[in-house]
Amino acid sequence: MFVLINLKAYPCDPVEIATIATDVSEATGVRIAIAPQATDIQSVAETGVETWAQHVSPVEHGSHTGSTLAEAVSRAGAVGTLLNHSENRLRLADIDAGLRAAERAGLETIVCANNPRQIAAAARLEPDSVAVEPPALIGTGTPVSKADPEIVTDSVEAASGVPVLCGAGISTGADLVAAEKLGAGGVLLASGVAKADDPRAALEALVEPL
Amino acid sequence: MFVLINLKAYPCDPVEIATIATDVSEATGVRIAIAPQATDIQSVAETGVETWAQHVSPVEHGSHTGSTLAEAVSRAGAVGTLLNHSENRLRLADIDAGLRAAERAGLETIVCANNPRQIAAAARLEPDSVAVEPPALIGTGTPVSKADPEIVTDSVEAASGVPVLCGAGISTGADLVAAEKLGAGGVLLASGVAKADDPRAALEALVEPL
Amino acid sequence: MFVLINLKAYPCDPVEIATIATDVSEATGVRIAIAPQATDIQSVAETGVETWAQHVSPVEHGSHTGSTLAEAVSRAGAVGTLLNHSENRLRLADIDAGLRAAERAGLETIVCANNPRQIAAAARLEPDSVAVEPPALIGTGTPVSKADPEIVTDSVEAASGVPVLCGAGISTGADLVAAEKLGAGGVLLASGVAKADDPRAALEALVEPL
Amino acid sequence: MFVLINLKAYPCDPVEIATIATDVSEATGVRIAIAPQATDIQSVAETGVETWAQHVSPVEHGSHTGSTLAEAVSRAGAVGTLLNHSENRLRLADIDAGLRAAERAGLETIVCANNPRQIAAAARLEPDSVAVEPPALIGTGTPVSKADPEIVTDSVEAASGVPVLCGAGISTGADLVAAEKLGAGGVLLASGVAKADDPRAALEALVEPL
Repeated sequence: MFVLINLKAYPCDPVEIATIATDVSEATGVRIAIAPQATDIQSVAETGVETWAQHVSPVEHGSHTGSTLAEAVSRAGAVGTLLNHSENRLRLADIDAGLRAAERAGLETIVCANNPRQIAAAARLEPDSVAVEPPALIGTGTPVSKADPEIVTDSVEAASGVPVLCGAGISTGADLVAAEKLGAGGVLLASGVAKADDPRAALEALVEPL
Repeated sequence: MFVLINLKAYPCDPVEIATIATDVSEATGVRIAIAPQATDIQSVAETGVETWAQHVSPVEHGSHTGSTLAEAVSRAGAVGTLLNHSENRLRLADIDAGLRAAERAGLETIVCANNPRQIAAAARLEPDSVAVEPPALIGTGTPVSKADPEIVTDSVEAASGVPVLCGAGISTGADLVAAEKLGAGGVLLASGVAKADDPRAALEALVEPL
Repeated sequence: MFVLINLKAYPCDPVEIATIATDVSEATGVRIAIAPQATDIQSVAETGVETWAQHVSPVEHGSHTGSTLAEAVSRAGAVGTLLNHSENRLRLADIDAGLRAAERAGLETIVCANNPRQIAAAARLEPDSVAVEPPALIGTGTPVSKADPEIVTDSVEAASGVPVLCGAGISTGADLVAAEKLGAGGVLLASGVAKADDPRAALEALVEPL
Repeated sequence: MFVLINLKAYPCDPVEIATIATDVSEATGVRIAIAPQATDIQSVAETGVETWAQHVSPVEHGSHTGSTLAEAVSRAGAVGTLLNHSENRLRLADIDAGLRAAERAGLETIVCANNPRQIAAAARLEPDSVAVEPPALIGTGTPVSKADPEIVTDSVEAASGVPVLCGAGISTGADLVAAEKLGAGGVLLASGVAKADDPRAALEALVEPL
């Protein structure tokens, strides 16, 4: 199972969480990555943790003020990027162009989507993985694997071979195990770790059953 | 005069240009700042150069995947931000919210706009400065001070006291002097330095007449 | 006082409401206009009521599939258009271009905004009027004139001579009178009439105190 | 073959072109539809021609000022809608929601896309048809069937059973025949008819070889 912790724009210390993630990953052998703000990619990557971008722009080098260039993200130390997160929905043509930009920069890719039908579409754009996150469950603490397990199994089927992660409401080790049983190859987490009073304890408890 | 060099998503070495800018600024006393990709703010700021963001998102801390948080930009070492660059046009309500986000994070602000009427509007949103960049001149090498000097003087009048920078087509020291005579308090530059074969020579020639 | 009834995408009968508005306007002498869906402008205008568009695109004739062309809106019978409603926020440059498009087509214009600072900005773009609608009050039934009367008086001051309408939460005749006393030249209404069980009674009660 | 003529925001007379299309369709038996501005749907539909919308918003009835509601489009007389035209690119989630809105309103749907990979994705969202329009060819007079026939055949394969139309550069009867031979079930046209000096002659010449 791949555990990707999305720090969003939370008021956490990204380097502290990266250090914890590195420790827990080494101690348990579970693959854990951190997706911080673009400005924090370099300092997070310097901890040695697997580092991801939260987004890259669908552009090449050029006149694109305010963009997040895939090549710049890569140079700062990221090895992958999310695209089309439900808080940053993209146009179909821009998901395609963002994936091609990420490929050029050597970044692994996960395209997020709301439901199995959109997962089917996203998978056809040739990302490395897709992630299904029902918007209604994000931040609720109710995992999709419990609230609506068919969304996960339908997404796995719709993705026809592209690995599926699941997000929204994941916070406990039991949620991870449930997601794995439904066919997910990983999970996206955010507030469960980033906003935890004790992020180390939260992350250890999360991966303990794996 | 304030000289702000916007590196956009150009394939330049941001640290090299930042180092040059620091040298030239120290040698000449001209205020020079660099606006790199968000991922490069930290390494650019570590050179000691005045560092700006190209954009910040109109949000506070929270669930905003893929945003560029003003607080994160500031923590990485930036002291200011552009908003509403012509390559990244924002909704009126988001310029307002972006300015308030920048204020909370202690960032100086420049709001860009296309023409004197939009400059008048932008100035009422209480940025520290505004910048007029006629889209038709961006990247042309023909400075607005020569192509249409009334755009600068009309913008200065429209801004009613808010300092005005001018951009688009600025590349020589004569362009800077002309902009200053028209009432501009600074200039935005991009390709003239960032894409120059010899960025140091380009920047020295630029500020030489000041 | 100008009363503009925005039908949004409500499941009402636009021709029925237009007919009522015509009757009430003729009986009372109050200026009342209806802003239906673009598809309904022609049939609403044919009732004789003053008809407005809810939005026009910032474009001229050309290759703009899916746009709402100001000239087409005018030809269908509209005499004015809203721009930048809080449910359809526009980029600063597009409010400017939308206003110029509306001018070319001979449409009267109202630019909406959230707060007095944005009203000041919007007024500088030279619309015929501006409208202040605090997003938090839309659809609440609590009028801005009661919840926060300073937003109206501050907007009137910020607009420096451009007439100010106020919206959000207006539903009774007392709200209209209060808005007028605060300096508003009109009101934007929506659900108070469009979703009323008896739209005729609702509209008559609304304008009765004028 | 299905011939859909997109009037975009061209300065043509939509009712005149609709009348011509009705005549030519009746004389030749070729299915011809017109997609006018939303404001013109009613008057175009009244000519008896098959009428389409250029776009519908991804919303239901409600507070959506400035939207183009699928139900309103249908009530005005349209029987179908384009979505995601290259001049009006939509977010993946909004194509999905727009398709569901169109279904609720009983509208037939065509989702446009740039290339075979995006066609594959669009087809998985369950539209009635997809249309491939390489952006570089739009408005050129060089048909995709000649410039790059593999784009059409690859799109037909990628759509896995969903009918494919092709657009961009179609203007002659030979272009239609070529598109049909490549597997297309129809064509999207725009300037070739809407901007023709003699739209009747243009349309007759177009469908003559069928």
